Amino acid sequence: MPGEFELIARHFTRPVQRAALGVGDDCALLRVDAGQQLAVSSDMLVEGRHFLSTVAPERLGHKALAVNLSDLAACGAQPLAFTLALALPRADDGWLAGLARGLLALADRHGIELVGGDTTAGPLNLCITVMGQVPAGQALLRSGAQPGDELWVSGTLGDARLALEVFRGNAGLSGPDFEHVRHAMECPEPRVALGLALRGVARAAIDISDGLLGDLGHILQRSGVGARVDLAALPRSRVLAAQPRTLQHECLLRGGDDYELLFTAAPAAAAAVQRAGDAAGVAVTRIGVITTEPALVVVDEAGGEQHPAARGFDHFA
Amino acid sequence: MPGEFELIARHFTRPVQRAALGVGDDCALLRVDAGQQLAVSSDMLVEGRHFLSTVAPERLGHKALAVNLSDLAACGAQPLAFTLALALPRADDGWLAGLARGLLALADRHGIELVGGDTTAGPLNLCITVMGQVPAGQALLRSGAQPGDELWVSGTLGDARLALEVFRGNAGLSGPDFEHVRHAMECPEPRVALGLALRGVARAAIDISDGLLGDLGHILQRSGVGARVDLAALPRSRVLAAQPRTLQHECLLRGGDDYELLFTAAPAAAAAVQRAGDAAGVAVTRIGVITTEPALVVVDEAGGEQHPAARGFDHFA
Repeated sequence: MPGEFELIARHFTRPVQRAALGVGDDCALLRVDAGQQLAVSSDMLVEGRHFLSTVAPERLGHKALAVNLSDLAACGAQPLAFTLALALPRADDGWLAGLARGLLALADRHGIELVGGDTTAGPLNLCITVMGQVPAGQALLRSGAQPGDELWVSGTLGDARLALEVFRGNAGLSGPDFEHVRHAMECPEPRVALGLALRGVARAAIDISDGLLGDLGHILQRSGVGARVDLAALPRSRVLAAQPRTLQHECLLRGGDDYELLFTAAPAAAAAVQRAGDAAGVAVTRIGVITTEPALVVVDEAGGEQHPAARGFDHFA
Repeated sequence: MPGEFELIARHFTRPVQRAALGVGDDCALLRVDAGQQLAVSSDMLVEGRHFLSTVAPERLGHKALAVNLSDLAACGAQPLAFTLALALPRADDGWLAGLARGLLALADRHGIELVGGDTTAGPLNLCITVMGQVPAGQALLRSGAQPGDELWVSGTLGDARLALEVFRGNAGLSGPDFEHVRHAMECPEPRVALGLALRGVARAAIDISDGLLGDLGHILQRSGVGARVDLAALPRSRVLAAQPRTLQHECLLRGGDDYELLFTAAPAAAAAVQRAGDAAGVAVTRIGVITTEPALVVVDEAGGEQHPAARGFDHFA
């Protein structure tokens, strides 16, 4: 049975390209370019809560890094490097190989490196800290939304939640449809290119990890504004669009695990937002407006107004 | 019962002093000074493996940050900021308050800030990523040891392991003596000031987390050298010195959780090493020499030579 150090070396150690020093010393050493701020985010994934025990290790590796890159995307930061701390019930060579494959494939696509971390025995837990850089003063923040701004979202919403409802036995899908939403849940695509393209275009941004309403609530709270959201405008896959309306709404508004960008921009910037989406190769959809009145209103298909609590997912609720 | 966001806000959110942006957005934003490299390290602490369930939350908070700062110390980096990702079985207000107290007290002593992180439900797990800066090219590495260098260690070794042996029922101590070694185990003092003072003085450095021999092995392997260690010279507390010789040796050589600095320096730098220790307020002791022959030899009190395997602690062994 190979030991801890050997397993780490086998699957996770590769020659560093950009970092001054990578895995294998007490610290990694990185260069942050002149005039840039360091952007940092940490996310922890726990079995049974953030992923199912049945997930393929490749997809888990992908998702663990993707949710962190999504935070950099929401700030408009260029990814630089990441660390991985891993608690494992046992040292399973094949499983670790799969995890490393999924993780490093996504890292390669974003030109970033695993520069350090930790491995220990314990209940399965993955903690990634990602670092990026953004020109000083240009980061997209939650606090920049202004009344009159239009509210936008990238991609489609709700598929990951629909997959979860299938796993829970609350919905049924055909094989191909299930694979579509399962892929959305297990392999989210961080919108890094879109975040970069939105610098100087968007006024506020966040990534949707805890559901549209919850994460919109963070923008409203930090910006001291309200919003009207047009339920009919929310972008959804044809799989979700075929579901009963109540389930659709739940998945769209409170889904979680979407990892799309939610952002605001001045109406005059609408064409620039569309160009940013085109450049990044992802659809962007106008879904509402920012209001002076600090309230959250959802306008349904019949024109009726709902006043939902703008509460994010609470891991202890 | 307060929710996740409220608990985080209550105990861990404070106005940032140095960071451009702290807790509460998708990323934290930090400044790295011109000419400096970013130094990064992540450590994960798991209940039952890195700490006992009986540990006071203040001490756990201290230790979780201390072991990370110890990695910066080993590189000679100046701490800047850290993130905390936390998995908790339940949201216990009093416990979190204690954890935050211990964590933030140590952070304050080092002038650094908690800038972000994550909280989730799950088996107890603390993952801290610490960031620091070091002038480009001046970091202390594991790979710099040269034949003829003297081998040094800070503080004393083995007390944390002795405390563990008491918890395991393999040793007995008086109340005050037990409190002394328990403090060593639960409240290690990261040698940040010493690491900074050793820049330009030491040639190679590591912090001792997995036992003297294991961590020395990392220096030897990365530097392509060997070492002779003088067992009688190893610095130990009067509590450890009163223990049976076999137990003493085990604690000194394979203890783990020491968080002292192990470093090498040219013989001509001995006075500078002593001045660095004086400036940092910590004893430094010469414990051996670096050799050309790539082997690890421990010379015992009788002058006999032992050839231990230079293996670190393996969490899966």
